[in-house]
Amino acid sequence: MLTRAEIQHLRSLREKRRREESGLFVVEGPKVVGELLAAGFAFDEVLATPDWTAPPGLEARRVTPDEMARISHFPTPSAVLAVGRVRRPGLTPGALARGLTLALDGVQDPGNVGTLLRIADWFAFDRVLLSPDCADLFHQKVINASMGSFARVAVHTTDLSAALAPGAAVRAPEVIGCDLDGEDHFLLPPLPDAVVVIGAEGRGLSAPTKGLLTRRVTIRRLGRAESLNAAVAAGIICAHLRRPRN
Amino acid sequence: MLTRAEIQHLRSLREKRRREESGLFVVEGPKVVGELLAAGFAFDEVLATPDWTAPPGLEARRVTPDEMARISHFPTPSAVLAVGRVRRPGLTPGALARGLTLALDGVQDPGNVGTLLRIADWFAFDRVLLSPDCADLFHQKVINASMGSFARVAVHTTDLSAALAPGAAVRAPEVIGCDLDGEDHFLLPPLPDAVVVIGAEGRGLSAPTKGLLTRRVTIRRLGRAESLNAAVAAGIICAHLRRPRN
Repeated sequence: MLTRAEIQHLRSLREKRRREESGLFVVEGPKVVGELLAAGFAFDEVLATPDWTAPPGLEARRVTPDEMARISHFPTPSAVLAVGRVRRPGLTPGALARGLTLALDGVQDPGNVGTLLRIADWFAFDRVLLSPDCADLFHQKVINASMGSFARVAVHTTDLSAALAPGAAVRAPEVIGCDLDGEDHFLLPPLPDAVVVIGAEGRGLSAPTKGLLTRRVTIRRLGRAESLNAAVAAGIICAHLRRPRN
Repeated sequence: MLTRAEIQHLRSLREKRRREESGLFVVEGPKVVGELLAAGFAFDEVLATPDWTAPPGLEARRVTPDEMARISHFPTPSAVLAVGRVRRPGLTPGALARGLTLALDGVQDPGNVGTLLRIADWFAFDRVLLSPDCADLFHQKVINASMGSFARVAVHTTDLSAALAPGAAVRAPEVIGCDLDGEDHFLLPPLPDAVVVIGAEGRGLSAPTKGLLTRRVTIRRLGRAESLNAAVAAGIICAHLRRPRN
């Protein structure tokens, strides 16, 4: 039995401001809840109708279909809704100097942010940075589109100018920006330590970020398209950085 | 002045069946209309409110904002709507033997199909094949997501089994499918003539298509994501096939 206050509280978590206040987020649906559980994500609470079969060892709080309809964010409520804790780990000084980092500069489409998390996960990047004007990591659409990578990738929401600025303790050896008039990406050597910065679709990299790049690369174009989708461009650069050394 | 029948006709073109019957499609909005005009696409008719400035040489039929609101497919009508002719060119026998072909096998998301057209355009692929269960090429969302590539890429809607079947006159030298247990994609040699087949998200390649592949490749995975977005995977394979020969 859910109280009226609980229902109101759970419904409110679709708003970023309420997530920040309460430190909680929700995801909904057997697919995404299953993906995150499979990835070892520890939810605070899992609410489910009798239709949902909890995996062994997990105790779900049972709610009626009518209660689920009242807490759901969707027109057609699903059988399970899980509540997790918002965590925004800080960036350890010096962290960017080691390993590969994917930095998203103002990527506002939640589906794109989720797809980019999947790419970072697939290519075993060490971390993802989100500028504060990116879609929020705890937006349901980001988590859905990440296909479980949300639970596997270390993500830091941070001001990119500060994190990448020369002289900052966290300066990475190479800061590679992808835009339309850089060097051919095939010339990029395999780099074990680097930050790859991906800008927003449409407007590209922000001016402050552009000033902090150590390399600008462009994916080799043979045809006439004016641009590539941000996630497609990121995938090509990440794959290239992870190619075998000859 | 638009007649009631014209309004009804224009509104109906959001349905694929009506597009097939009339042989016409519509796109709406200054961005997409401008992209297609810039790419040299010849519309049958361009309808615009006085807010829209037609490019030099183009004569737009003037409609009132109220008329535009009645023909628009969007809750907020834009200043321009263009009517084009549906063209479904057949595949010339033997065509696949030369050059690079991107074949989409049941990609149902219109945004993904448009993004894949952009990739084919960027890497100067010679043609794109759509299986009949893909999102329709003349769906407004496909055209929007293609960012003008709709007007630049040769697209054929065709049964892939027939087009790729051994013994068919149109057999390509290599038919490369992207799935999760093929050879490392970095081992793929540069191929000037090949068909790259991309399956639907979720279900992957269809069984008949799988049987027609000459190579199966998997994008090298270093992390734990279970899959990549179909357009991201296509971008990585297309970039790899277009790499410079050493």
